[in-house]
This record gives sequence, C-alpha cells and structure tokens, in this order.
Amino acid sequence: MTDGSLPALEDYQWPEFVPGHVWLVGAGPGDPQHVTLGGLNALRQADVIVYDALVDDRILSWGRADAERIYAGKRGGTPSPKQRDISLRLIALARSGKRVLRLKGGDPYVFGRGGEEAQTLVQAGIPIRVVPGLTAGIAGLSAAGIPVTHRDVNQAVMFITGHDQSGNAPGAIDWRAVANGAPVIVLYMAIKHLAHISAQLIGAGRRVDEPVAVVSNATLGDMSVLETTLGAAADAVATSGIAPPAIVCIGEVVSLRQTLDWAGQLRGEAPSVVSSTDISPSVAFE
Amino acid sequence: MTDGSLPALEDYQWPEFVPGHVWLVGAGPGDPQHVTLGGLNALRQADVIVYDALVDDRILSWGRADAERIYAGKRGGTPSPKQRDISLRLIALARSGKRVLRLKGGDPYVFGRGGEEAQTLVQAGIPIRVVPGLTAGIAGLSAAGIPVTHRDVNQAVMFITGHDQSGNAPGAIDWRAVANGAPVIVLYMAIKHLAHISAQLIGAGRRVDEPVAVVSNATLGDMSVLETTLGAAADAVATSGIAPPAIVCIGEVVSLRQTLDWAGQLRGEAPSVVSSTDISPSVAFE
Repeated sequence: MTDGSLPALEDYQWPEFVPGHVWLVGAGPGDPQHVTLGGLNALRQADVIVYDALVDDRILSWGRADAERIYAGKRGGTPSPKQRDISLRLIALARSGKRVLRLKGGDPYVFGRGGEEAQTLVQAGIPIRVVPGLTAGIAGLSAAGIPVTHRDVNQAVMFITGHDQSGNAPGAIDWRAVANGAPVIVLYMAIKHLAHISAQLIGAGRRVDEPVAVVSNATLGDMSVLETTLGAAADAVATSGIAPPAIVCIGEVVSLRQTLDWAGQLRGEAPSVVSSTDISPSVAFE
Repeated sequence: MTDGSLPALEDYQWPEFVPGHVWLVGAGPGDPQHVTLGGLNALRQADVIVYDALVDDRILSWGRADAERIYAGKRGGTPSPKQRDISLRLIALARSGKRVLRLKGGDPYVFGRGGEEAQTLVQAGIPIRVVPGLTAGIAGLSAAGIPVTHRDVNQAVMFITGHDQSGNAPGAIDWRAVANGAPVIVLYMAIKHLAHISAQLIGAGRRVDEPVAVVSNATLGDMSVLETTLGAAADAVATSGIAPPAIVCIGEVVSLRQTLDWAGQLRGEAPSVVSSTDISPSVAFE
C-alpha cells in the first residue's frame, strides 16, 4: 500500500487549503482514476468532507483518516437535505475555522448546483476555490466507447438536464430548436422523462431510428450500456431495467461505439465494425 | 522534490500500460493540477509520449525520464503534421512494441480529433484505452469564475467548435436553432470567426447586449478574461489583442462572474456583486 503523494514541480505550489475556506471539488464520474491531482490535493488537506450520493467510497478513503465525513446526499429513501441547508452548513463549518471540502459527483458546475452553493458562500464572505472534475456526459460516454464529438459527425454538442428544479421534465427547453441545432444531445438525469423528451425530439423532426445510448454507472465496474434508437429508447429503458445514475446520448456518434468500444476490446471482444483499409507504418513527420 | 506516487486502493488496480498499446490521454486545460490520476498513471508508464502544442511542459515532465517525447503539434510557424501521419506514426510506434501515450490538450473527444485517431488505431488492430481529461469549455470557464450551468439561468449548454476541417467558420451549424435552443453557448477555437458567429446569433435574435466572456490561457498563470457583449465581442477581441488559445462563453452565466470570480477574490479583489442577505449558521441537517 502506498499512501500516494503529489508529484513535485519547480516553481509550482499545490494550492494550500486555508482554514475557514470552502473548496467545491468535482470527484468525476465514478472510477477513482478520474479524480484530478487537484482533487487529491484537496482530499489530503481537508478537515471536513461534505459529500454527495454519487461520490465513490474509494475516493472518500483518500481523505485524511481524521477528517470528518458528512453525507449530504439522498440515498435509500432518506429525504435529501435542502440545498439551502447544505449551503448554510458549509458556511457554519467554515466559520468554525475548518478546511471544508464540498465533494460533488462529476463537475460542480455541470448541473451540480455548485453555482448556487458558491454564490451563497461568497455572499457570506467565505473564501472559495473551485476544483473542476470530469463530467459523466463526456468521460462516462468515453468509457462506453462513444466520443461526444467527431469531425465527420458533429461540430456541436448540447448538454441538457433531464429534469428541472421540481423534478419535472425541463420546462425552459425549446425542443424544436434543440432538434434542429444539436446534432448530438447528451442528457443528464433523464431516465424518468425520456419518453417525453424523445417524443418532443421526434415531433420536431429527429429520426425515429436515430441511435441512442443509455449508459448507467458510467466508468464503474458495473457500468451498463444500452444501445437503442430514439423511437424505442423509453420502452427499451423500461424493459431493460437500466436505472439511474445514467447518461443518455442521442446522435450518430453512438454508432462509432461499434469501432471505439475500447473497454470491450480490452476484455477480448472484437470490434463489430472496422474498415478493411490496409494501414502501413509511416514516418512522414519527425 | 517528491516524485509522486499513486494512492493505493484495496481491490483496485491502476491500469497497466501494456507494450504495443496506445492510450489517448487528455491533459486538461493547462494547469498541472487538472491532470487526472489516470493521466499521471499513463505518464509514469509510457515509453513514448506523442504530445500536442497545448500540453504544458510541466505535465510532460511527469513522464519517465527515459521516455521518448515526440512533438506532434503546430507551433511557431511550423506546419503541423497531417492528422493521418500522426495516426500512422502512433501505429508504427505501437507495432514496434512501445507503450505509446498520445497526450492531447483538454479531452481527447471534445473537438480534439481523438475519435479519428482512435478509429485508425482500432482499424489497424492496435489496442487502445481512452483516458479523459478536463475540457477548457467547462474547467477553463470555472477558473475564470463562470459556471457553465446554473439552475436559475440554463437547463442546457451547447459546445461548438469555431472552425471546421478547413479552418472556415463551422458550416454545418444552424445558427437560428442554436440561438433559440442554447441559452448558454461555449465556443472552442472561435477567435478567428467570432465576428461571423456573433452576427449570425444576433441575426437570429440573440441580444446585442448579451454578456460574453473570452478566456485565453484558461487556468494558467497568464490567463486573461475579457468581459464584453455579443454585439461588441469581435471588436473588443481585436482591440484587446487577446489571442488563442481561447474559449468564448455567451450567455447570462457570464454575469455570475461578478460574484463567482473566486481566483480574483483569493488575490484580494472584492466581489463586485453580492447580495446583502444576512446568512446565519444552521445545523438543519445531520
């Protein structure tokens, strides 16, 4: 067992966690290897770690043994603490002179309500730092063999949250504009409203047979990937029993998974589509 | 100086870099702290590192001392190697039995042409692994004090590349749909075509006075942030001399920087906008 240490650099100081400060840190999509060095630096110093449901226990284990760990998520039927209560708790801990690490799944600023927490902290005069993390809509799809962009497919990609503040389908989305403007659409937390969303997109002209992937537990050992189509997605999700947390990707990049499912290939599965081009080594640049 | 080591976990193996494999690794937006543990794990093992222009030298220094470092980017007027030549070179290196690390700025799958490289490698029968990195469109804006999403502002965000395969403004974008569908728009590599893009968006109904931020050298010591408006952005960029690499963010989230510029605040600058709400500590959950 090695405890791990941050690599040194000349003229570079790893940020020092000052008592009374709050750091909003993204833990990434799940697999501990997706934590950043900045995230590890935060874990090493924090006095208190206030963490969400989707943060992996193995990542929490990198905190100091004597750090207090406070769970601020929803799990197993327990009602989740109100957002405002979490923010106020962070303020109280900071004011008591602790180094407070607010550890969130994914990235704090991608549908993670980190912006609200940060605002409340700044308004209370608490110094903050934001340490970004990998977001499942990019890194989770990558683990499933899907590139969110590809030069031959899309010059744009849209990320949309699958529910609004009250848990309903997002109300402020112009689905016709999304259907026309976003060749690839990545939905966060969208399992519940997938039937509604796919009907909106099809109604606005997206193809019923457009490829869709639903990736749950992305990057983790129990990751599962459901490949379907826009027209069949909601039923396929219901039938398969695939459950949150999940990312939904809509668009032709999903088809690239047939070639780019690197994790499957490392387990010995053959790519289902490869070109027959003969590629010879080249030393064309050097 | 510490050389750094990866923290151990029970029942968790850091991926082993097998000779003859190619790993596509994202180095993040610049600051070395944004490298992931998976990225560091790759650097520690690689025999050859083929890196792009935007990869920081300090990150490269974490590679093995005896690793070969091959530059595959464009810099200082040198013509860049053709994409196909880079892919073929990766294949040749892998076939010679090396552990080949392809190190790209940001994330390999976000407008990084990683998808093309991965396809070519798989087609050649080379086993690959993709190690995602933080993308500047999220993490770079975060460093500038801008959350790409905020519950009160946007349920969606769109990422668009600022130029197509031949360097022109992206041709496949329906700007009217983007203007109507994307409350927040993040543009990569868009300095050159910003006048064209902003004119398209304004022509499609976006407000001339909509807030815009242009962030260059995001996350690095020489990061600069230009706050402007959609109508004035292209002229402001020309006047300011702000240069690539830069990320452009269009949308009301830019205004949150007045409260959330945490880096400026840590340097002693006061937030320019804070609410006057009195916030008292609470222990409402536990």
